[in-house]
Amino acid sequence: MKYKIDDLFEAVASKGHVCIGLDTSIEYVPKKERKKEKNDAKAVLDFNKALIDTTHDITACYKVQIAYYEEMGTEGLKTYSETLKYLRKKGCISIGDIKRGDIADTAIRYVKAHYNGEFQADFVTINPYMGMDSVEPWIKEAHEHSKGAFILMRTSNKGMRDFQYLNAVDTESSKPEPPTRLYNKVGEKMAALANKYKGSNGYGMFGVVVGCTEQEEAAEIRKNFPNLFFLIPGYGAQGGAAQDVALLLRNGNGGVVNASRSIITAWKVESQTLGDVDAKATYSFAAQAARRATLKMRDEIRGALK
Amino acid sequence: MKYKIDDLFEAVASKGHVCIGLDTSIEYVPKKERKKEKNDAKAVLDFNKALIDTTHDITACYKVQIAYYEEMGTEGLKTYSETLKYLRKKGCISIGDIKRGDIADTAIRYVKAHYNGEFQADFVTINPYMGMDSVEPWIKEAHEHSKGAFILMRTSNKGMRDFQYLNAVDTESSKPEPPTRLYNKVGEKMAALANKYKGSNGYGMFGVVVGCTEQEEAAEIRKNFPNLFFLIPGYGAQGGAAQDVALLLRNGNGGVVNASRSIITAWKVESQTLGDVDAKATYSFAAQAARRATLKMRDEIRGALK
Repeated sequence: MKYKIDDLFEAVASKGHVCIGLDTSIEYVPKKERKKEKNDAKAVLDFNKALIDTTHDITACYKVQIAYYEEMGTEGLKTYSETLKYLRKKGCISIGDIKRGDIADTAIRYVKAHYNGEFQADFVTINPYMGMDSVEPWIKEAHEHSKGAFILMRTSNKGMRDFQYLNAVDTESSKPEPPTRLYNKVGEKMAALANKYKGSNGYGMFGVVVGCTEQEEAAEIRKNFPNLFFLIPGYGAQGGAAQDVALLLRNGNGGVVNASRSIITAWKVESQTLGDVDAKATYSFAAQAARRATLKMRDEIRGALK
Repeated sequence: MKYKIDDLFEAVASKGHVCIGLDTSIEYVPKKERKKEKNDAKAVLDFNKALIDTTHDITACYKVQIAYYEEMGTEGLKTYSETLKYLRKKGCISIGDIKRGDIADTAIRYVKAHYNGEFQADFVTINPYMGMDSVEPWIKEAHEHSKGAFILMRTSNKGMRDFQYLNAVDTESSKPEPPTRLYNKVGEKMAALANKYKGSNGYGMFGVVVGCTEQEEAAEIRKNFPNLFFLIPGYGAQGGAAQDVALLLRNGNGGVVNASRSIITAWKVESQTLGDVDAKATYSFAAQAARRATLKMRDEIRGALK
């Protein structure tokens, strides 16, 4: 079976591992350009488009964090929708970073909104706390219409230790097993699902989110879940480096690495030598800086894999 | 300190325990009315308004499930926003059932969107999987501007057993404790927070979601978490009854009980004797049926508390 995850696999092979996070706050858009626009939402859209135009040949996929658009209300959500539409038009793979997680009829509404509706993306992110019946409603649609999802497993934030790191044991199971961290329990369920819905490159239709900020269990996670494709946050600002990422990859593939601010605000850093850059920088300037940051990151990861 | 949770406590005391879930799908709106409206989103809004007008004197609060509005795209989200606005105008307490859960800068965007922005509600629901740093960004704003939140603890769906019921132990803790279910671990963190931010009626500023579909641990959960106010799903269609709810209350208060379809589609059941009702029913008819269903539920719960 060929799933969207196979397209992503192939994109990684040809374009590298970078997933650009379009977590675009209005503060990340150069002031000079903002002034010309009708409103903030429109400025963010044009900024996103400029970035996509300049980076799509060296980027595996784009992750659009919906929180930044919800902040701007319905106008912002139109920009979220338009950004995803632009990615489709350009033939790019998109991840709607929505972290939804709900059940039954409610989940079906989310499926409609984010797989087929105004907010449609190729992949979504899902929060598993409510259980596998919050994942199931996405499966049929993904299987039939080549969509995908990444389920939160081990994230990249400090608070992941609060619950994801708890040692868990299923005392109601008929065959008792040794305790293992909660995130592994999530991984086990997803690995079983991946065996049922396996793409042509050996990875399950749905992958998981595994951050690269904690090296400790990285190699073990990769070894234990060979059929799961990873969406990897935590690179750069959060502390993850190329060698941490390398531990989470398999034969040079099997994961995309998200970076957001280090790429989309690269123009701010690059231009500090130029004086009051915020007043002078353009979309084009920001996009070129983003391209350089993407290339650097892509090559760092490729270098660590050698 | 007086928090929004105190207003909710007082609303329960005077109006009863019912929280009406405005999970309004367009199929729940009478056909006759739909035809007159500009679009589905507007029909849903007018339906919601009619329901609110007819039930607000016997309803503790309203929970608006955002998934149903996201399904309709940005037009739907305008209706979500307008519904919350109408609730404010009427002096009703609102819960935005968004189940968001994200960290750091991303979480702050959600806080802005759902406490202050176009989607502002009195309470929100939060998914704790990522850890307490996905709860923290909401605290400051809630404390300063009288807002609240309900964190998912033990939900009401079958899948809650997949992860929430796992026995968990913090092996990295300096003082080892006996294993306890994951949902209790979430409850413990929230109880500690409640002690820091306690309202004038003894409940923490933030409560938790505890479903009433599983009687087994209900009394224990209530006993173990006396300072947590409960948002209780699972009543009616999902199998929870008034006596199950009673186990989760404390001195007749300490919780609101959500019901959605049994109330907002009550008109469909009531009118089955009238032939093709969908073609004849009006907003007013639907709203009166909702009122009767609400009164019935309110009195069932009050009866079980005697």
